[in-house]
Amino acid sequence: MKNIKTLSKFLCAIKFNFHLILPLGMKSLTKINRVAHDAGLQTIADIKLNDIGNTNQIATERLWESGFDAVIVNPIMGPENLQNLIESAHKDDHGIITLVHMSHPGAKSGYGLTVLQPNKKILKINELFLEWSYSMKADGIVVGATVPQIIKSCHKKAKGRCEIYSRGVGTQRGDPRCAIKSGADYLIIGRKILNAKDPILEAKKLQELDLES
Amino acid sequence: MKNIKTLSKFLCAIKFNFHLILPLGMKSLTKINRVAHDAGLQTIADIKLNDIGNTNQIATERLWESGFDAVIVNPIMGPENLQNLIESAHKDDHGIITLVHMSHPGAKSGYGLTVLQPNKKILKINELFLEWSYSMKADGIVVGATVPQIIKSCHKKAKGRCEIYSRGVGTQRGDPRCAIKSGADYLIIGRKILNAKDPILEAKKLQELDLES
Repeated sequence: MKNIKTLSKFLCAIKFNFHLILPLGMKSLTKINRVAHDAGLQTIADIKLNDIGNTNQIATERLWESGFDAVIVNPIMGPENLQNLIESAHKDDHGIITLVHMSHPGAKSGYGLTVLQPNKKILKINELFLEWSYSMKADGIVVGATVPQIIKSCHKKAKGRCEIYSRGVGTQRGDPRCAIKSGADYLIIGRKILNAKDPILEAKKLQELDLES
Repeated sequence: MKNIKTLSKFLCAIKFNFHLILPLGMKSLTKINRVAHDAGLQTIADIKLNDIGNTNQIATERLWESGFDAVIVNPIMGPENLQNLIESAHKDDHGIITLVHMSHPGAKSGYGLTVLQPNKKILKINELFLEWSYSMKADGIVVGATVPQIIKSCHKKAKGRCEIYSRGVGTQRGDPRCAIKSGADYLIIGRKILNAKDPILEAKKLQELDLES
């Protein structure tokens, strides 16, 4: 709560990781969302949702009830479920952000898989996830700052249809400047700010970097 | 809680869906796990975890703290993160169950993708997920009862190295008898029992079906 209040003027939204959401019940989640909204921030539940339709539907209803503005989902569930999630979220102005390529060292082994489509077209699974995302009007996509070349190609192909959120800056060694230059619209930064000696100074420095570009 | 007590003698474990876990805090989760354990049941957190190493680690610590015995994870995170999760869980006798093929109507568009490997080998992404799962000693895999032919091929290839959990029976139209005949070791059944006129009778019928095979 204290971090939200002291850092809010350098941020536009807060993403809550899975392990932060998991131990909290509805009451605590609602309270945190209210504090974030009062500080002028939007909130994103980073639960990488990838389930059957019924579970996706009820899980997102619970998130919206507790005040979240958007949720991060994994397109591996398939385009049909993704489309349903997006349409349902947009009905009451909530957002769906899809995971196109993660930021951790082994991410390439999953998100860099080469897919052979029935029409013989060959592409990377992250390219397929991107295609599904912009054609279904997802609000944003997540691409690791550790793979700036993929941010660049997503930026080129998405043509502004999805905003690009880049994570993995700092602790995971993604370069924030490079991520922005490659086309990221937003940087998702947690530990680099929160574990800094002076979190306010660190957030300020990163915000200036963003404004420069 | 009441369902756990009345149905426990027909079950061996309970799987908690994401939307059930999401609104509950640590206190309620711990209580439910205790009631299930007291009834002689194991508990599985079906959160389809697929995150960076740090989040996977802390999220599973929270689950074990609240009493869960196992967690369902999505191999799309890549084999490196999957291996770390399995090794870490096995240190204190917890289980990792991987999602190899889901049960919903559009699951094939994701889990049925054809992957072209660097060595030119062509296989389905669910076959790759299966290979990762048994070679890394995952405790079990989930395959939809709606795709019995995939249960059959997983059973053949896994050669008992991973137990097969099959979901999607009933509401999603998977046939429990066919799933068992194809090689499923356990059936995951929720709504077909809970929404039945007589849940105890329904559970009993399904248990007898399982014992017959």
